[in-house]
Amino acid sequence: MARPRKVRRHRRRTPVGAPPGTLIVDPQSTRTTIGVFTYDGSRMAEEADAGVDAIAGLKGDLPVTWIDVQGLGDLEAIRRLGENFTLHHLAMEDVLNLHQRSKVEEYDDYLFIVTRMPADTPRSDTEQISMFLGHDFVLTFQERPGHVFDPIRSRIRGHKGRIRTSGPDYLAYALIDAVIDNYFPIIERSGEALEQLEDRVVAKAEPVLMGEIHDMKRDLLELRRAIWPQREMLNSLIRTESDLVTDTTKLYLRDCYDHTIQLMDMVETDREIALGLVDVYLSSLSNRMNEIMKVLTIFATVFMPLSFIAGFYGMNFDRGASPWNMPELGWYYGYPAAIAMMAIVAVVLIAYFRRRRWIGRET
Amino acid sequence: MARPRKVRRHRRRTPVGAPPGTLIVDPQSTRTTIGVFTYDGSRMAEEADAGVDAIAGLKGDLPVTWIDVQGLGDLEAIRRLGENFTLHHLAMEDVLNLHQRSKVEEYDDYLFIVTRMPADTPRSDTEQISMFLGHDFVLTFQERPGHVFDPIRSRIRGHKGRIRTSGPDYLAYALIDAVIDNYFPIIERSGEALEQLEDRVVAKAEPVLMGEIHDMKRDLLELRRAIWPQREMLNSLIRTESDLVTDTTKLYLRDCYDHTIQLMDMVETDREIALGLVDVYLSSLSNRMNEIMKVLTIFATVFMPLSFIAGFYGMNFDRGASPWNMPELGWYYGYPAAIAMMAIVAVVLIAYFRRRRWIGRET
Amino acid sequence: MARPRKVRRHRRRTPVGAPPGTLIVDPQSTRTTIGVFTYDGSRMAEEADAGVDAIAGLKGDLPVTWIDVQGLGDLEAIRRLGENFTLHHLAMEDVLNLHQRSKVEEYDDYLFIVTRMPADTPRSDTEQISMFLGHDFVLTFQERPGHVFDPIRSRIRGHKGRIRTSGPDYLAYALIDAVIDNYFPIIERSGEALEQLEDRVVAKAEPVLMGEIHDMKRDLLELRRAIWPQREMLNSLIRTESDLVTDTTKLYLRDCYDHTIQLMDMVETDREIALGLVDVYLSSLSNRMNEIMKVLTIFATVFMPLSFIAGFYGMNFDRGASPWNMPELGWYYGYPAAIAMMAIVAVVLIAYFRRRRWIGRET
Amino acid sequence: MARPRKVRRHRRRTPVGAPPGTLIVDPQSTRTTIGVFTYDGSRMAEEADAGVDAIAGLKGDLPVTWIDVQGLGDLEAIRRLGENFTLHHLAMEDVLNLHQRSKVEEYDDYLFIVTRMPADTPRSDTEQISMFLGHDFVLTFQERPGHVFDPIRSRIRGHKGRIRTSGPDYLAYALIDAVIDNYFPIIERSGEALEQLEDRVVAKAEPVLMGEIHDMKRDLLELRRAIWPQREMLNSLIRTESDLVTDTTKLYLRDCYDHTIQLMDMVETDREIALGLVDVYLSSLSNRMNEIMKVLTIFATVFMPLSFIAGFYGMNFDRGASPWNMPELGWYYGYPAAIAMMAIVAVVLIAYFRRRRWIGRET
Amino acid sequence: MARPRKVRRHRRRTPVGAPPGTLIVDPQSTRTTIGVFTYDGSRMAEEADAGVDAIAGLKGDLPVTWIDVQGLGDLEAIRRLGENFTLHHLAMEDVLNLHQRSKVEEYDDYLFIVTRMPADTPRSDTEQISMFLGHDFVLTFQERPGHVFDPIRSRIRGHKGRIRTSGPDYLAYALIDAVIDNYFPIIERSGEALEQLEDRVVAKAEPVLMGEIHDMKRDLLELRRAIWPQREMLNSLIRTESDLVTDTTKLYLRDCYDHTIQLMDMVETDREIALGLVDVYLSSLSNRMNEIMKVLTIFATVFMPLSFIAGFYGMNFDRGASPWNMPELGWYYGYPAAIAMMAIVAVVLIAYFRRRRWIGRET
Repeated sequence: MARPRKVRRHRRRTPVGAPPGTLIVDPQSTRTTIGVFTYDGSRMAEEADAGVDAIAGLKGDLPVTWIDVQGLGDLEAIRRLGENFTLHHLAMEDVLNLHQRSKVEEYDDYLFIVTRMPADTPRSDTEQISMFLGHDFVLTFQERPGHVFDPIRSRIRGHKGRIRTSGPDYLAYALIDAVIDNYFPIIERSGEALEQLEDRVVAKAEPVLMGEIHDMKRDLLELRRAIWPQREMLNSLIRTESDLVTDTTKLYLRDCYDHTIQLMDMVETDREIALGLVDVYLSSLSNRMNEIMKVLTIFATVFMPLSFIAGFYGMNFDRGASPWNMPELGWYYGYPAAIAMMAIVAVVLIAYFRRRRWIGRET
Repeated sequence: MARPRKVRRHRRRTPVGAPPGTLIVDPQSTRTTIGVFTYDGSRMAEEADAGVDAIAGLKGDLPVTWIDVQGLGDLEAIRRLGENFTLHHLAMEDVLNLHQRSKVEEYDDYLFIVTRMPADTPRSDTEQISMFLGHDFVLTFQERPGHVFDPIRSRIRGHKGRIRTSGPDYLAYALIDAVIDNYFPIIERSGEALEQLEDRVVAKAEPVLMGEIHDMKRDLLELRRAIWPQREMLNSLIRTESDLVTDTTKLYLRDCYDHTIQLMDMVETDREIALGLVDVYLSSLSNRMNEIMKVLTIFATVFMPLSFIAGFYGMNFDRGASPWNMPELGWYYGYPAAIAMMAIVAVVLIAYFRRRRWIGRET
Repeated sequence: MARPRKVRRHRRRTPVGAPPGTLIVDPQSTRTTIGVFTYDGSRMAEEADAGVDAIAGLKGDLPVTWIDVQGLGDLEAIRRLGENFTLHHLAMEDVLNLHQRSKVEEYDDYLFIVTRMPADTPRSDTEQISMFLGHDFVLTFQERPGHVFDPIRSRIRGHKGRIRTSGPDYLAYALIDAVIDNYFPIIERSGEALEQLEDRVVAKAEPVLMGEIHDMKRDLLELRRAIWPQREMLNSLIRTESDLVTDTTKLYLRDCYDHTIQLMDMVETDREIALGLVDVYLSSLSNRMNEIMKVLTIFATVFMPLSFIAGFYGMNFDRGASPWNMPELGWYYGYPAAIAMMAIVAVVLIAYFRRRRWIGRET
Repeated sequence: MARPRKVRRHRRRTPVGAPPGTLIVDPQSTRTTIGVFTYDGSRMAEEADAGVDAIAGLKGDLPVTWIDVQGLGDLEAIRRLGENFTLHHLAMEDVLNLHQRSKVEEYDDYLFIVTRMPADTPRSDTEQISMFLGHDFVLTFQERPGHVFDPIRSRIRGHKGRIRTSGPDYLAYALIDAVIDNYFPIIERSGEALEQLEDRVVAKAEPVLMGEIHDMKRDLLELRRAIWPQREMLNSLIRTESDLVTDTTKLYLRDCYDHTIQLMDMVETDREIALGLVDVYLSSLSNRMNEIMKVLTIFATVFMPLSFIAGFYGMNFDRGASPWNMPELGWYYGYPAAIAMMAIVAVVLIAYFRRRRWIGRET
Repeated sequence: MARPRKVRRHRRRTPVGAPPGTLIVDPQSTRTTIGVFTYDGSRMAEEADAGVDAIAGLKGDLPVTWIDVQGLGDLEAIRRLGENFTLHHLAMEDVLNLHQRSKVEEYDDYLFIVTRMPADTPRSDTEQISMFLGHDFVLTFQERPGHVFDPIRSRIRGHKGRIRTSGPDYLAYALIDAVIDNYFPIIERSGEALEQLEDRVVAKAEPVLMGEIHDMKRDLLELRRAIWPQREMLNSLIRTESDLVTDTTKLYLRDCYDHTIQLMDMVETDREIALGLVDVYLSSLSNRMNEIMKVLTIFATVFMPLSFIAGFYGMNFDRGASPWNMPELGWYYGYPAAIAMMAIVAVVLIAYFRRRRWIGRET
């Protein structure tokens, strides 16, 4: 019954009582690489691993610059990036504090967006993606290098869809949409696991199943915790009065919002089904108990009278002392009569249990 | 205990990371046929299977044109329809993505309405119906050819009710109303199934019933998921400020809204009853266990003392060695006395169980 | 365990797909009689069974006319009434569709009010009462002739209270209040039944009780479904901006609203108690099981060692073959010693069970 | 298992269908006494049992007059009081209908306030206190004479606090505050009872406990039903736009409102704990069952093989007929060997149960 | 099963009926010490234990004065502090009434803030911290001297962060943030305890675990009760229109608000997991019962037929009286045949149980 335990989320790192805005790097953070894309409808420049200073030069030439920071190990580079873009230190603290809920915070010149992406781990962990959306840039921070944004990169490179002809808000939308899209396969996989669990629970109540139902419920709980704030985050973006998000992009964000509603719907339905499975499992256990008890009861009620009869004629009353003492033992057909009596008792009892349907269909 | 399993909804098809508005056809989609009705109070033209280009010619002559697309297999035709009516590509994507929740989206010149209809399958699946409502047209898309709109067609042909003298908004209402109406027989059938389940659960706790209760709860969950957004969708239509929906039609939509409330009411009541059935079932299991245990206990407690007495007089103490050794075996009435003792023990125990009501009414 | 089953509400009759406003009469409807009252503070005219045409003559002479239609069997008369009062066909459809939730709909010249009254049946069914409130008339439709409005009639006749000196809105209030008042005895009766059920469940867990708890929960569910919309209906009347309801009458409606709150309160409390009863019942079952098992265990654990001892001395080892073979059988006090050993074992075990409190207070 | 049953609240007395505002006295009502206080900062007059007419003379001389009616037996006096103060007949009906929820109703010249006070009965019944707050008077009605307002009386007499220098709204606040304060000891007592119940349930699952948990849940339900509307009532008073309540007094009412929040908090917490106790109790029952079954199983599995061996050597195969027939019986160490075999079986089984921890710690 | 019981919160001390604003000191309160900090960006004065009168001299010189009262034993000093700062007596009463929920109350010249801090006790008790925020001072009251504010003190002394250059609202924020921060380790510890509990419950259903789950649920309930109002309190501070809180500080308070949301999230998740544990535990109990019953049933069903056969051949029918009487006893291979029969029965039964999987994997 050994279960693969998930690593407990260690949720918050800034030491208790530290002044707000203290930047502290998770010692397990991976190396930082900074990718940069700048583009408009006709031109595009890409740098796979730029220095912090090089970015200052790149930004501003073309209408959209996307700085994509992967891995949060290099505190100094991140701190200087924050300074170059004059980002608020509270937001920068949140970038490094990898346990934020999804949210949007409006600052004067930019929006600070936090979203969470399902991680590659076997269980439903999530990674934090932080995003700054300015008038001519999008700055993203990922916990670990990963492939979630690859489709966006190839759409930029290949000039696919309307990404190259739109502003940074559309880029931000495309990135958020890619994150949200990643939940669908997760939830579908979890839904299939749930179906298999259902089939197994209905088929047979093995003790190991309750643990699996419990883990399933936990995973769905985590998924809900991850998706629910995405909905609020998208809602804030749709309702924002900031001119950083255009009405056209809001149309796309509404579509993205619909997807989170759909995700919530799927998770909630699965949660209710998982909850119902507990009842199915418990009733299944009771049924097995009933069956076990029936087997015992049938054996006991059949054999106890038989054993009694056998024991009865095993008594040692002295037939010589009195004609009243166990005369059956001396009868000519005494033994066959005893056997017949036993057979009748057994048949009657078995017929009784058959009539009560304890024997037959189920047992 | 083999249950007919429903096919798991594979809920979303656009590949993860594809640009929004990508039109991708479900490979299992059926052939596309496009029916067209144009009418006013006095005139009416009908075409059973029109080409996309023919529609351009039909539309606009009469105040209401209904283009009814059945089967979503012909991507090219659907794409061109979307272009001819200048429909937004996000809406067109939703038309083909058959797992939308019911909703209304307002665009400048038309409303995009999604609703879900109970499918003809044995279990409570639903089909998506997408609808565009413009100033002089209604454009509907159905997953599969079906008869849900037949009453509307015959009302148009037969000039029944006020459909021919009203605008496209009334037609849209009539179509939505036909969809909603189709839930009533579904829920009534499910309600009757629930009643039969209730009767069976109360009568006897068969192991197979828990699986049926679980399936019933799942079906009701799916129904609720389908109906709940209909309510929001109708509410949006009633509250819309768009001039596409007249106040008169809103009166009818309010009636339709009342029907969804009634549907929700029925589903919620049935859900609570189904939930209560779990308790009835579990208590029924416990009752059976109690009965089984009673049978065992009665047999065991009656026969164990009897067997003990029989075994007692089966002991082989040497009567010759001492007058203290089992003198009963040599008594004249020893054997009848032993039988009498057994009979008394049995009668006393049975009387005890009868007084405790373990024997009689129930067992 | 045969339970009197309630007839399942067949909830909606208009055929699926029929145009809205189709008037269809329930074939089980009773004969229609139309009573008419017209009155002001000094004059009053009453007609017990008026023709539809006669009503046209009566209406309008005095400030308040109450047309009271009982039984919905005469479709033609009802249709013509609707026309005479120029009532909307959607509202008229709802009058005949006897499965509406309580509601208020505002039309230009009248309010359409639906309320539900507890029926005379043993279980908690409800009847629909539809009401049109105009500037100088109240038109009510009852499913079946009944006595619910008798107190109002005698107050009109006897000039009791302020009914004769008030307008039609006060009459409508008085009628609604009479309907709401009828729920109190129903809920009090149900509350008393619940108390008796509580006492029985706490006293002894008979198998039949779970079915009764389930039925009780269903009945309370139905009551809640009937009362909840009354609250919304009254709230709409209190908040209406229509001049059909005066501020004075709203004061009375507020009182009536308080009563529905009180009703809901009683129903919800009873529902929670009924829900708690399930736990009491299940724990009671477990307790009985424990008691049964204790009886079995005490008997088994006492008699098994005794039977073993008896069986032990029933072994046939050949004492002649060896002095080691069962010398006890030849001892002078062998038999009394065996009896003493048995007695000691029994006493020790019984003392053990008494110390664990398995014997004594409970068993 | 006889429980002290509480008298069921007979909740409403006005006969069904009576005109609103009918004043009907509960026949069990106690004698009416009317106490009067009039005061300002410097002067004070008190009358312990004034006549209705005397009150007319007292009122108006000093800025605050408090008429305190205790016992509702004298319908005539109450009716005349209502007339003298020109109180609305609907409000007067509520004064006598002792089953109102707490509420505030605003009339032109006064506020009508209903609150409920915990009664002196052992179980959590409540008494109704009705209050009219005018510009220069407070008129209170209590079901039964009681001491709840004694502290207020002595504060008026002793000129303690700011009661003498404030208006009637402060007096009304002080009275409501006294009522609310009375819930604290009730809930604390109930909380202590709950703690004792917790300890007993965790210690040992006696059958009587489930009934007590159920009663506890009922009592908390009643308390919640009593306190919840107090909160709304106070909220209405704080938010009222009437000039009868000054801003200074609202500050005090806010404090009082905080107390009801605190009360609700305590009741809700206790309710959740009580709900959790059901699980603890049920699991405790299961644990006991497990223990009982273990005792049975250990005894049965140890003694059944032993008895079988004894029975085996009790067989009567004729050793003379064949050397194959039970030669063990004639062995020199046959009997000791049999005993040894039994001992080994017993030791092995007991070791097995000890290893599975069925024996030892728990049993 | 002795559990360390927590001391029941004795929740409210002002005697029932006392006039509002009565200052009463908890007799268990600790000695009062008053620390004072005054500072601006460049200067700072600190006094560890100031007299009430000395404070009057200190306040006002520098823009921020923090008076930090620890221990509430000295009623007179506290009363005079309240007078010196002209604080409302209702607020002062709440300072001493140590069972307030977190809240903000706005007075003309200051805000009164109550927050609750996790106490140092093993169980999840909380301590009350009251705070007055004025234009140039912050006045805090702590139940007991403690170290929660030490980081703030050292930040003031060390001129770390922006505390010295900000106003009293930032100081208030920093103090509240320090309080909120203290919940994180508490909840993480509780989360780890929950994980260990999960592992133990899944591993083995020991009776003691249910009590621990119950206590865990209680603790989480208390934590929720403590944190929930913090959220409202911070929300009030963020939305306040008072000029006592600047927009810059509100940005920090929003960050703090996010932390409480995160705390609630963690507590709610843990609560749901703890709730699910009850099901796991109960199913685990049922599983153990099943296993126990299987052991019993296997032993009983195997040995009962064997014992019957042995008993059967222990019957004493007189072989001399008839050739029909137990001829088997005289057969040459009678005894081996009986043994073979027993062996076959045993093997068949064991094979049966093995096929049903009662033996093998699980037992």
